[in-house]
Amino acid sequence: MNTAAQLSFAKGHGTGNDFVILSDPEAATPISAEQVAWLCDRRRGIGGDGILRVVRSGALLDAGEIDSLPEGVERDMWFMDYRNADGSLAEMCGNGVRVFAHWLCTREGVTERSFHIGTRAGVRTVSVHAADELRAEVTVGMGTPEVLGLSTCFIGGQGYAGLGVDMGNPHLACVIPGLTPERLAGLALGSPATIDTDFFPEGVNIEILTELDAEDAVHMRVIERGVGETLSCGTGTVAAARAALADAGREHGSVTVNVPGGQVTVGIEGDNSTLRGPSVILAEGTVRGLPGLTTTT
Amino acid sequence: MNTAAQLSFAKGHGTGNDFVILSDPEAATPISAEQVAWLCDRRRGIGGDGILRVVRSGALLDAGEIDSLPEGVERDMWFMDYRNADGSLAEMCGNGVRVFAHWLCTREGVTERSFHIGTRAGVRTVSVHAADELRAEVTVGMGTPEVLGLSTCFIGGQGYAGLGVDMGNPHLACVIPGLTPERLAGLALGSPATIDTDFFPEGVNIEILTELDAEDAVHMRVIERGVGETLSCGTGTVAAARAALADAGREHGSVTVNVPGGQVTVGIEGDNSTLRGPSVILAEGTVRGLPGLTTTT
Repeated sequence: MNTAAQLSFAKGHGTGNDFVILSDPEAATPISAEQVAWLCDRRRGIGGDGILRVVRSGALLDAGEIDSLPEGVERDMWFMDYRNADGSLAEMCGNGVRVFAHWLCTREGVTERSFHIGTRAGVRTVSVHAADELRAEVTVGMGTPEVLGLSTCFIGGQGYAGLGVDMGNPHLACVIPGLTPERLAGLALGSPATIDTDFFPEGVNIEILTELDAEDAVHMRVIERGVGETLSCGTGTVAAARAALADAGREHGSVTVNVPGGQVTVGIEGDNSTLRGPSVILAEGTVRGLPGLTTTT
Repeated sequence: MNTAAQLSFAKGHGTGNDFVILSDPEAATPISAEQVAWLCDRRRGIGGDGILRVVRSGALLDAGEIDSLPEGVERDMWFMDYRNADGSLAEMCGNGVRVFAHWLCTREGVTERSFHIGTRAGVRTVSVHAADELRAEVTVGMGTPEVLGLSTCFIGGQGYAGLGVDMGNPHLACVIPGLTPERLAGLALGSPATIDTDFFPEGVNIEILTELDAEDAVHMRVIERGVGETLSCGTGTVAAARAALADAGREHGSVTVNVPGGQVTVGIEGDNSTLRGPSVILAEGTVRGLPGLTTTT
């Protein structure tokens, strides 16, 4: 019998943005870029858009995995150690925070329903409205959508004009007059986008969306920088809601954003924004064969 | 706390062709097309190219899931109830049989190292050369590659000539003179293929491969009918080996076939063919949220 080390894992998603969850409160099992890429491989691993490592902020600091706590993050806060599927570090993931909060409330004994989470981008405030082991509904504070001004892009020869919005990462949210959900679904968005690189020197995430309808809802598709089209992008839905409100001559409101992976609700009030949506944690188990794994948990 | 029914599952792959494994010896948990598609969804489920349901042939018959046992299949044989990711039934899967045999030897108490497996396409004989919980090396009898004659196809404006081979499913195996592994890797195979529909009325799987080298090895890429390019196709590697040998003026031999997902060895001897390659079973756990699941296992 093989006695290779095993690692506990779970799999979850927020509106189709999916994650491998690794619970490691004491930061006892550091994870390498190679291991992240192996776990996120959809055919030879578990598969996911990224890893949510669940760890105490203080433990991460004591283990030397971070040099200092990000602004506002305290030692006893849970920390979302998020990694992209390619193994690189990521600061934040709006859909990931919902799944992270869902995990804390149902698997780590967190009993509060409103609390703070540490991330590399600072503190995020979450409210868990309902949660069982399978599903949760969570609101995440998303900070200030900073309007950058107007810009344009071209995808497959078609031009799109939109509002540049900084959510910590850059967005170009393009509200298309008269666009229907059906025509949006049929748009060819598979070609590489041409953008204004003076305006967006580090690239940009692009949202294409319908105008705000009578119920304050929009339909949106998103092309993530360096990734291509995805089922959902948390910060992108906030940028889209900000642009849709601006397009309707409004400064604040609550916008239902329909993405290919489901539906979320964005609140914009003054300088603050919130993102409310579902989380699903559907599988839990053990994985073996991880390259370089020596710790058995 | 949620008490939704849970189902045990495992995840494995053979040269990158990946499967969700469901152990159900007594056929106690029938699985619907909707549930298969949900499980195989790579972002909102577990993710896989298909499902390997592990069941006794007699139990499947007694449960009324099959009307009669396929030719040669006996009641006490293990039966590979294979489903495609879209929920449709499939007769056989050459890479799946390796993972299935690996599962039997390490999780169902099978102690023989050479045995028969029932499939919808009849009996398959397997030999398990080595197996631990994580990895195995398995040879599967693949039957007779029937040569259909010569045909051609076009992909992205480029023509390819090859040998039609029937492996239970149809193949067009195109040995390209002078093609190097590097040039093969760079070929644009993403466009829809144009085929001779008189020759292949039900479509065809297409293999593009190098000539047999001095070590009797080839490099191959495969475009699966109705799916597109995949990392590996079991029957496709046998068809490719048959074509490579024919191209070299030989009737039999042992051919190393390098596919994007790894390496297998095909043996062709008289009317018989065998496929030897690796299996990996990397994760085991429970899944919840499956639509319509009422049985808790």
